[in-house]
Amino acid sequence: MKIAIDAMGGDHAPKEIVLGALKAVEAFPDIEITLVGDENKIKETLTSHDRISIIHTTDVILGTDEPVRAVRRKKNASMVLAAQQVADGTADACLSAGNTGALMAAGLFVVGRIEGIDRPALAPTLPTLGGEGFLLLDVGANADAKPEHLLQYAIMGSIYCQKVRGISNPRVGLLNIGTEEKKGNDLTKHAFDLLKSANLHFVGNVEARDLLNGVADVVVTDGFTGNMVLKTVEGTALSMFKMLKTTLMSSFKSKLAAAILKPNLMQLKNTLDYSEYGGAALFGLKAPVIKAHGSSNARALYSAVRQTREMAANNVVGQIKQTIEETKQKHGE
Amino acid sequence: MKIAIDAMGGDHAPKEIVLGALKAVEAFPDIEITLVGDENKIKETLTSHDRISIIHTTDVILGTDEPVRAVRRKKNASMVLAAQQVADGTADACLSAGNTGALMAAGLFVVGRIEGIDRPALAPTLPTLGGEGFLLLDVGANADAKPEHLLQYAIMGSIYCQKVRGISNPRVGLLNIGTEEKKGNDLTKHAFDLLKSANLHFVGNVEARDLLNGVADVVVTDGFTGNMVLKTVEGTALSMFKMLKTTLMSSFKSKLAAAILKPNLMQLKNTLDYSEYGGAALFGLKAPVIKAHGSSNARALYSAVRQTREMAANNVVGQIKQTIEETKQKHGE
Repeated sequence: MKIAIDAMGGDHAPKEIVLGALKAVEAFPDIEITLVGDENKIKETLTSHDRISIIHTTDVILGTDEPVRAVRRKKNASMVLAAQQVADGTADACLSAGNTGALMAAGLFVVGRIEGIDRPALAPTLPTLGGEGFLLLDVGANADAKPEHLLQYAIMGSIYCQKVRGISNPRVGLLNIGTEEKKGNDLTKHAFDLLKSANLHFVGNVEARDLLNGVADVVVTDGFTGNMVLKTVEGTALSMFKMLKTTLMSSFKSKLAAAILKPNLMQLKNTLDYSEYGGAALFGLKAPVIKAHGSSNARALYSAVRQTREMAANNVVGQIKQTIEETKQKHGE
Repeated sequence: MKIAIDAMGGDHAPKEIVLGALKAVEAFPDIEITLVGDENKIKETLTSHDRISIIHTTDVILGTDEPVRAVRRKKNASMVLAAQQVADGTADACLSAGNTGALMAAGLFVVGRIEGIDRPALAPTLPTLGGEGFLLLDVGANADAKPEHLLQYAIMGSIYCQKVRGISNPRVGLLNIGTEEKKGNDLTKHAFDLLKSANLHFVGNVEARDLLNGVADVVVTDGFTGNMVLKTVEGTALSMFKMLKTTLMSSFKSKLAAAILKPNLMQLKNTLDYSEYGGAALFGLKAPVIKAHGSSNARALYSAVRQTREMAANNVVGQIKQTIEETKQKHGE
């Protein structure tokens, strides 16, 4: 299996990306990695390895670039060339820690959509109290969504949880403002009916307040709301850590106690660090495309490679394709 | 000034409601309070006071009641009678810690909308790192919103911040998935243009991640998204406290350190407890209607009374009415 990695994407590229790739080829004997990026910079970190190759380019998509325009114009950017490897059939999957919007655009325009999927969805795994995590989609591949899109998200998320996370009958929840059936806006009311009659383990509406308690394995929502929830979780956790730090540093006594608790607090931070679960998968494309967190270190990148490998090895894309076809046939489309 | 309070609404009613009311009449010599509810139960806590009267009723709207139906059918419920006091002109404002949806319905059907306001909005104040807090609206009075509604929310929120919170030129932000002007869904793209050309201190799009950093004094969004953000903040904070507790109780050493830090951790919890800021105001109605948190204790209820008093004393409703009229005239409607 061959995985193309954008070596120049992310806050700590290319160093941590290269280190993560090295860690991954050591762990998984069945993968080959192509690092796409500035060869000179990559070689500063890369020790020779017979299962890592380099495609050299100096062009890069920046975090500040307008996504669609950047993908269209910077045809030799490391991210675009990595996606091109997949489109050409040279690689089985690709991965980047760079500009999220640009990776979504590269996925859509270069790798391409699965026939029958109206909209791809970006799906990170968020932490839960029990440590098992849940898949949230869409978190921003599409700001506006129709009920049928949410059904497709549910199908794709369920298959992913079965194939990659080993959950035999994933619980699917619809993110809503109340748990009662008739709650919500136009979108969720219609999506509820569709999900209810689909061949899924639909557990009904779930509230944002209960997400981190693990009320469902797959939570579907439109990309606008999903993005809000994702960023609110991040923002609240970050703010609480800041507040915690301020209060712990407020006196000599509290500083002492805080020093004792440092390992406990680090553990808490790790539980909430969802890069441990891998990256965010882009579902609905013809091959696995994974977005690693922008702040990825070697460990986070390694997790994302592991996830990419599992998506490819377990043929998540093929299964999505088949299920979508069957669903459409059943509805006589 | 007379404030009608639903004595039976909330998890700790009527005891904590009555205690909060007593605290409030002591603090504010210019208010009179009418407690609406079961006289026998109220009198278990109420010490005689010449500025507190009781309207007796045994009917109550429960948290599980379907809001609109409950308000229509239970005409003698404590919440409905409290709203009726306002509609009759006997009270200047009303307050409940009961069923949120029912209070919104009572506000709409019994108290009534300000002419020119299309939709009322529910607006709590959320905590920020700096302690000043920000007003978020709408958090669920209306699941679906149009761009013009968001403009009205912005106007109402600004007036409230000026009159009640003493912020001379409140910064208004539009909750969105990115800070750039062209970001978002159909709703936010159109709302952006409206807000930009309005007579407001509009600071542009704000991201959910930055809310608790205090990026704006007033943040407007549709009720569905607002509700999600509100509940995600609550859920994340609550989950983090649970995790923190688990890790602090995991060993003898950490338990000792935790005992030392208890005051610091309580302080953190208080910073995040937005009942300190009062209740959530329902804007767009003919009189102030305030929703206190369901878990309100006497202190939270007291804060909500203080807020109700300030809204009434500073004529927030009158100012909203006037500004909406002027805005409509300017646009030749």
